[in-house]
Amino acid sequence: MAEIIHDVVGIGNAIVDIIGRCKDDFLVRHNASKGSMRLIDADTATKLYEDMGPGMEISGGSAANTMVGVASFGGKAAFIGKVSDDEFGRIFAHDIRSAGVTFNTRPSTGSTPTARSLILVTPDGERTMNTFLGVSPELAVNEVDADLVASARIVYLEGYLFDRPEAKAAFRQAADIAQQAGRQVALTLSDPFCVDRHRSEFLEFIRSRVQILFANEAEITSLYQTSSFEEASRYAHAATKIAIVTRSAKGSVIFHGNKATTIAADRVKSVADTTGAGDLFAAGFLYGLAGGKPIEVCGRLGSLAAAEVISHIGARPEVPLAQLAKSRGL
Amino acid sequence: MAEIIHDVVGIGNAIVDIIGRCKDDFLVRHNASKGSMRLIDADTATKLYEDMGPGMEISGGSAANTMVGVASFGGKAAFIGKVSDDEFGRIFAHDIRSAGVTFNTRPSTGSTPTARSLILVTPDGERTMNTFLGVSPELAVNEVDADLVASARIVYLEGYLFDRPEAKAAFRQAADIAQQAGRQVALTLSDPFCVDRHRSEFLEFIRSRVQILFANEAEITSLYQTSSFEEASRYAHAATKIAIVTRSAKGSVIFHGNKATTIAADRVKSVADTTGAGDLFAAGFLYGLAGGKPIEVCGRLGSLAAAEVISHIGARPEVPLAQLAKSRGL
Repeated sequence: MAEIIHDVVGIGNAIVDIIGRCKDDFLVRHNASKGSMRLIDADTATKLYEDMGPGMEISGGSAANTMVGVASFGGKAAFIGKVSDDEFGRIFAHDIRSAGVTFNTRPSTGSTPTARSLILVTPDGERTMNTFLGVSPELAVNEVDADLVASARIVYLEGYLFDRPEAKAAFRQAADIAQQAGRQVALTLSDPFCVDRHRSEFLEFIRSRVQILFANEAEITSLYQTSSFEEASRYAHAATKIAIVTRSAKGSVIFHGNKATTIAADRVKSVADTTGAGDLFAAGFLYGLAGGKPIEVCGRLGSLAAAEVISHIGARPEVPLAQLAKSRGL
Repeated sequence: MAEIIHDVVGIGNAIVDIIGRCKDDFLVRHNASKGSMRLIDADTATKLYEDMGPGMEISGGSAANTMVGVASFGGKAAFIGKVSDDEFGRIFAHDIRSAGVTFNTRPSTGSTPTARSLILVTPDGERTMNTFLGVSPELAVNEVDADLVASARIVYLEGYLFDRPEAKAAFRQAADIAQQAGRQVALTLSDPFCVDRHRSEFLEFIRSRVQILFANEAEITSLYQTSSFEEASRYAHAATKIAIVTRSAKGSVIFHGNKATTIAADRVKSVADTTGAGDLFAAGFLYGLAGGKPIEVCGRLGSLAAAEVISHIGARPEVPLAQLAKSRGL
């Protein structure tokens, strides 16, 4: 039996974000659905990049952001994901390691580049993501380090990985390893369109393998094909040990045991960029859960981290979350 | 005689900034002099990058930042500088072009990479730069587009280019072209250590070719080897048509004709990152000057742009400066 040395290990797409500002009509011209994530091919990425304004490159990736958040709280986190041996791959690896996250997945030496997401932030702070996955889905089954997965209390999987069959296999394998080692499996649904693309597989995967489910309102209602938040929540509650549904400014609701705990969103002076809000909520929650904190505290740690990340550009915290948590007595 | 189609053409190092946060003792451990710019070689850059925290990649380069600022005010700007045909080179070219600046210098296809500056921002917002120049100084004399230089009212040169003989030759050539075309030549001293490395050449260059000189207090006192700001200012005043001396929070003094005009610094709620403060002051001033505005208005445009850029991470404006200037009635 592997020793527990990590709080959480995350598996997801290894992405560098290219974040730029645009007006709403730019999204319309480029057929991008505001607030969502769409996959684009290399040509579309090139054209969109040419057309967009100046960018900043900041490491991203949903589960990767969450692991950086866990580490920023002082938790022990690891990440498994695929980059290429190129400039963006070096940036990704540097940033996640220097944030204190264990990251040992071997970079690909082929010609397919590291994934990038062209993130367009509109004046209201909402982000619209256009992701070219590049080498990221080439994470092979044999690259999921079984010892590493078994070394963490919780394995955290991002739904985006379902978008490519190779990555999905690695994803399933990680869940199996965790299950066999007696660890908990957490899943985030990632995006309503992603849910729509893989609904039946998600339902089956949740039923058979997931104890902790993260979703926002659009994702959970898409999963259970109902317009009623209450109805969708009941299904999620029945299917998992802990279901966490985030509702942006309305806070979140956590279903666990026979209870539903409501957590208020933390106030933010002004929303600069919503990228990473869900990722960082998950970070706070998982950090708390791995540390055995009460569910309400886990939720409040989530709200705290989400508020920090939407107050600036980029999906990773700019100040140590441990310090913020301490200042709030959490 | 070339037609005037640009307000300003800038010539400088084409750099992508890698900006990270650190505590003061990190600078001490790495022998970096707080607030200054030092040149480092590829090995030092690799080691320092490994040791520093997560970064964000944002296009930079002193004169390049200034040209982006001029364009952001609505001015017509062009930039001449050397990148490589690599990821950072593509980022630099994309960002400056999409900001509306004419940029046609051919990228190098050799193996020397695009320049990068590892910029460490301490908790007080001060920036310390560690620059690996890479391919940037390989800007050759034959790559200074004579028509482009002659097409601008003002040619703006950054002192940092003096650090390599090849670039210095291109620099001198640009000044000669501008002079022959009857244009104005502006120079920024860039950094007190840079001034120290090239004092006699700077003095000769200013005397023979420069009409507009930008410097901060440390640079101007270094140039004239005096600890007296007043004395250094008198020399600068005597040597140039317009000498602009910036003094951080104390504002700036502009010496022109027989006058000295004092400009207050714009208030900033909190200083996030001082990178680009001088570059953006120059942008506002040059935009005003090229548009025939009174000296005092030029200075106020400079203060406005400098205040915008130090209020966030990165050395280029995040909001259109034209809009800011309009809202202040400038």
